[in-house]
Amino acid sequence: MEIKVIKNILEANEAIAEQNRKLKEEKRLLMVNIIGSPGAGKTSLILKTVEKLGVMCGVIEGDIASDIDARRLAEGGVAAVQINTGGACHLDANMVHTALKEIDFSSGVLFVENVGNLVCPAEFEIGEDFKVAVVSVAEGDDKPYKYPLVFSKAGAVVLSKVDLLPYIDFNRKFFYDGIRSLNPTVKVFEVSCKSGEGVEEWCAWLRERFRERSGFPSA
Amino acid sequence: MEIKVIKNILEANEAIAEQNRKLKEEKRLLMVNIIGSPGAGKTSLILKTVEKLGVMCGVIEGDIASDIDARRLAEGGVAAVQINTGGACHLDANMVHTALKEIDFSSGVLFVENVGNLVCPAEFEIGEDFKVAVVSVAEGDDKPYKYPLVFSKAGAVVLSKVDLLPYIDFNRKFFYDGIRSLNPTVKVFEVSCKSGEGVEEWCAWLRERFRERSGFPSA
Repeated sequence: MEIKVIKNILEANEAIAEQNRKLKEEKRLLMVNIIGSPGAGKTSLILKTVEKLGVMCGVIEGDIASDIDARRLAEGGVAAVQINTGGACHLDANMVHTALKEIDFSSGVLFVENVGNLVCPAEFEIGEDFKVAVVSVAEGDDKPYKYPLVFSKAGAVVLSKVDLLPYIDFNRKFFYDGIRSLNPTVKVFEVSCKSGEGVEEWCAWLRERFRERSGFPSA
Repeated sequence: MEIKVIKNILEANEAIAEQNRKLKEEKRLLMVNIIGSPGAGKTSLILKTVEKLGVMCGVIEGDIASDIDARRLAEGGVAAVQINTGGACHLDANMVHTALKEIDFSSGVLFVENVGNLVCPAEFEIGEDFKVAVVSVAEGDDKPYKYPLVFSKAGAVVLSKVDLLPYIDFNRKFFYDGIRSLNPTVKVFEVSCKSGEGVEEWCAWLRERFRERSGFPSA
């Protein structure tokens, strides 16, 4: 009974995700679903990326409560549509659908910052081009082993806050081995939004994905 | 329809939580539900606490996948019963019930390390005496505003990894204001399991809770 309900929920979600895919195609948006734990550095990554990417960007901001992140983005000059889930632990396609209709630019990159949660958001397609798993070094090197789904589904992984590495026990090999066992070819970017380390490599990769998607000629 | 299903799930959960309460009373256990994001430092806190508490301790270890934490605890000489939720984003009363029956000591403190998730575990009573919200300074000072439920329900808050404070922008006042607005009297402990800072204050408080609970005379 419970399983049937969950199956129905996921099927209904998929139908709306498909509408989102069409909507984003019409607007020529690359839609990137940013998933990570609370405090992984998702908002900082988006702010830094928007600043450096050189492509029109927008943000759909998902939070259980508060508009702290949307205000942070606005202060950084980034327009964001806020979704408050009212307790729900993830964004679903329907929530994103409503926000997507409010997006008033085309031909650019649309970041969807999911609710801070390394578990549930990975289960719900929202019509994105790909998911990015953001995990900070402070969370530890064992995250791929303990939260495999998001790493197995990710189109890219950002290891954030690498400026903290000197103060933390973090075994890079163990971390990468965990990711490789789930997702052998996924790109992993080591980034510090504080020092700027790794930001350009990440942005270059994302720019390339945008160009592929939108059919623009490569620079 | 969906709301009705959720209501039924929570009611069924509450009935089993009540059985857990009875079971733990019989065993004279103080049952502490440890909730926090992935990488908040839950396992480290439990290891350090078991070492310093001076009271018989056990652990029920909840993970989506892997037994990394249970092995870490075993290496630290702590017996743990592992629950793998197989994808589920929280422990519920039924999962804990099965594990609780395997606990073979009485008159002590039983830590239940929930799945790394600051959202969903807060919704499910498992029959615990109280919840402890663990949040690391690396996650940022805005967590109470963005994830209010767990902070409003917590019997104590542990701000972990305070040894990283010199390398992070963390506004203590903003953090405490957020907690106070949700839970005016809750105790907050600033702890570093690396340096040992704050561990004794936290353990002293927990020892007192155990004594109240078990009716032992205070030392």
